[in-house]
Amino acid sequence: MASQRTSWNVQSSTMAQSAHNPIRQIVDKLKLDPQATKSFISLSVGDPTIFGNFNIDDSANEAVIRQLKTFKHNGYPPAHGTVDARNAVASMITTPEAPVTADDVLLANGCSGALDMCVNVLGNPGQNILLPRPGFSLYGSLAEIRSLKAKYYNLLPEENWQIDLTQMESLIDEKTCAILVNNPSNPCGSVYSQEHLKAILAVAAKHHVPIIADEIYCDLVFKGNTFYPMASLTTEVPVLSVGGLAKKWLVPGWRVGWIVIHDRNDIFKASVREGLLNLSQVILGPNSVIQAALQDILHNTPQQFYQDTIDQLEKNTKLSMDAVSKIPGLKPVQPQGAMYMMVGIDVAKFKDIASDVEFSQKLLAEESVLCLPGECFTYPNFIRIVITPTVDRLEEAYKRMDDFCTRHLK
Amino acid sequence: MASQRTSWNVQSSTMAQSAHNPIRQIVDKLKLDPQATKSFISLSVGDPTIFGNFNIDDSANEAVIRQLKTFKHNGYPPAHGTVDARNAVASMITTPEAPVTADDVLLANGCSGALDMCVNVLGNPGQNILLPRPGFSLYGSLAEIRSLKAKYYNLLPEENWQIDLTQMESLIDEKTCAILVNNPSNPCGSVYSQEHLKAILAVAAKHHVPIIADEIYCDLVFKGNTFYPMASLTTEVPVLSVGGLAKKWLVPGWRVGWIVIHDRNDIFKASVREGLLNLSQVILGPNSVIQAALQDILHNTPQQFYQDTIDQLEKNTKLSMDAVSKIPGLKPVQPQGAMYMMVGIDVAKFKDIASDVEFSQKLLAEESVLCLPGECFTYPNFIRIVITPTVDRLEEAYKRMDDFCTRHLK
Ligand SMILES: Cc1ncc(COP(=O)(O)O)c(C=O)c1O
Ligand SMILES: Cc1ncc(COP(=O)(O)O)c(C=O)c1O
Repeated sequence: MASQRTSWNVQSSTMAQSAHNPIRQIVDKLKLDPQATKSFISLSVGDPTIFGNFNIDDSANEAVIRQLKTFKHNGYPPAHGTVDARNAVASMITTPEAPVTADDVLLANGCSGALDMCVNVLGNPGQNILLPRPGFSLYGSLAEIRSLKAKYYNLLPEENWQIDLTQMESLIDEKTCAILVNNPSNPCGSVYSQEHLKAILAVAAKHHVPIIADEIYCDLVFKGNTFYPMASLTTEVPVLSVGGLAKKWLVPGWRVGWIVIHDRNDIFKASVREGLLNLSQVILGPNSVIQAALQDILHNTPQQFYQDTIDQLEKNTKLSMDAVSKIPGLKPVQPQGAMYMMVGIDVAKFKDIASDVEFSQKLLAEESVLCLPGECFTYPNFIRIVITPTVDRLEEAYKRMDDFCTRHLK
Repeated sequence: MASQRTSWNVQSSTMAQSAHNPIRQIVDKLKLDPQATKSFISLSVGDPTIFGNFNIDDSANEAVIRQLKTFKHNGYPPAHGTVDARNAVASMITTPEAPVTADDVLLANGCSGALDMCVNVLGNPGQNILLPRPGFSLYGSLAEIRSLKAKYYNLLPEENWQIDLTQMESLIDEKTCAILVNNPSNPCGSVYSQEHLKAILAVAAKHHVPIIADEIYCDLVFKGNTFYPMASLTTEVPVLSVGGLAKKWLVPGWRVGWIVIHDRNDIFKASVREGLLNLSQVILGPNSVIQAALQDILHNTPQQFYQDTIDQLEKNTKLSMDAVSKIPGLKPVQPQGAMYMMVGIDVAKFKDIASDVEFSQKLLAEESVLCLPGECFTYPNFIRIVITPTVDRLEEAYKRMDDFCTRHLK
């Protein structure tokens, strides 16, 4: 008998240990005072549904109910999604500049699942991946789980959060497996111009590095801005574009995401496609009933629904900019889309607030208002505000933030 | 500039390459003749819904529709599932011998997602895991992706597919991270006795190896057999039990699974629990609306539904045993539950069939009937029959198999 164990000693794997979500660790430090008399207002979670003012369109909900009633879509779909569902995504995404078909689409368990597959298919342990700073914390977690080194490129708040391209380029080496670009951005609310996206693509082309484009906030852009799918601006750079129902269709809990493979020069070849198919077979894709309704959801939701969503987001953003720019010590950066606003904290102006984490902690303790500190996005001295609460909640929150900042000023 | 790349060279990662599904490779070799005149009958996919005779209960479907209509469950659930959904699982699974609460439950993307998390939390690259042969092919894939060595323990067809415990024990060494036990079994249709389960647990206890119990076919057992949850038979061995809606509730496409942590002696400690929570945060759990309906699905589906399912499975199994045992060259092993039957192929009796794969290939080509060859389950010289088609389809399939075997006899 080769085994010599004389007692129990079961540990979780190093991978499971490394899979920790940095946001959770920080948020665990932010405790709501159970004695708090003020009602709790959360400006912290990127979930537009929790306040009751952003709801999926009736027609899309009805489409799912219709499919449920057929009893015909309860079986296993193909691991990467049904042909009809992949077709629904392809025909929405395809453009003359970047044509795609159902064969270029894989469904996934949310955009998170799509990102997981993209990072896993392109990265080998020991390589590195370029990630935005500030950026969505899942990116760093995925890199860490996969033993990829996360190299952070800087976004410049004073330039609408555009990428510092020189610094980004300096990070690229032989072991760089991908550049991850998030546009529109969480947490910045920025929307990149065509020129800037082309400049990013030029760097990728020069160094022959593929791009993972996280476009989950596609089309959620305010007047005067345009969303350009990254893949539509390059003929050379292979792009894995990821998206999903979570934000534009306001159903993050449904866990439907997708990967669209843009590879007109056949650089990924069969290898990456086959790799993605392999990965999709491990836990299979999203719920089959929602897949059956996807054509209706993506193509028959009335245009007015999307417009109403953007109007509401834009109105809340304006309200937020107006209110927060008047608060002493705070400096909001104008968003152009998505559902977030980054706010700089001038800690020098406060007598007893030394960091963004301390700001968030004290604001929660004293005013029952929760914002995530920038540290959650590897970006200290900022806080992120989610602008999706109802107008009256937002106004109340900003009033309390104003009181709070005024009280703590030097 | 450190990068020296002068051209594109993008390959899929070794992990993505290793994530291949062995079944797919084998099934790819099984091509239906497009000229085939006979209607296609598939006895190959473990999906009870595709023939129209096994359907989720109306009440469970209605529960989901009810929740959809509230518009209240479209947001992000906690990564490991809502309290209500975890409670619904816990209160169904808990027994006086193995009590559990919502804190011991994590929801996952199907039982596949649950298995993925269990293997990932217990195994470090370079370790090994004990898997059944024959067994569900995902087990081997998960091991390979994770760089765990799969060590196969033998099931004995002549002893109702019980485990060869001596051989299993001989596989255990210092690097064994877990023993995976699947009861009732895919592909065997076996249901283990209390004594046998205790004997397996005794080996695990002796060598201090935790158990992953794949109990997705729980309760799908025929008259005279009883399903014993593995965890209810041990006070010592920590057990991660996995299950889901796929089989007992007949909705594999819904992708709802769960992990129940049984650890009365606190051997897993915080480490494994925390590790599972970490892993759950990467892509989050199943659809939020189904989570909201889970209490109704698990607790208010009428008893008659479960009985009807078993009655139908048992009737089809009897029909299959009777028919297949009369076919020359074939030797079915009596199932006691689940939805499968393993059939031995006496290749010596055939003039031009050298293996199970060839049997499946020729049967498909000549009779348009598809069964998976045992090689899909690392078990040559057998085929697996899925017994969920309608009675008339089954009868037709067995008639064609009889013709086929008779024709190919020596
Ligand atoms: C930038 C970004 N990408 C991906 C996701 C994850 O999307 P999903 O909920 O579809 O997994 C989010 C969620 O907040 C996000 O902000
Ligand atoms: C033994 C076994 N475990 C797990 C699964 C996967 O279940 P799910 O569809 O919930 O992922 C299957 C599916 O056939 C199975 O046979």
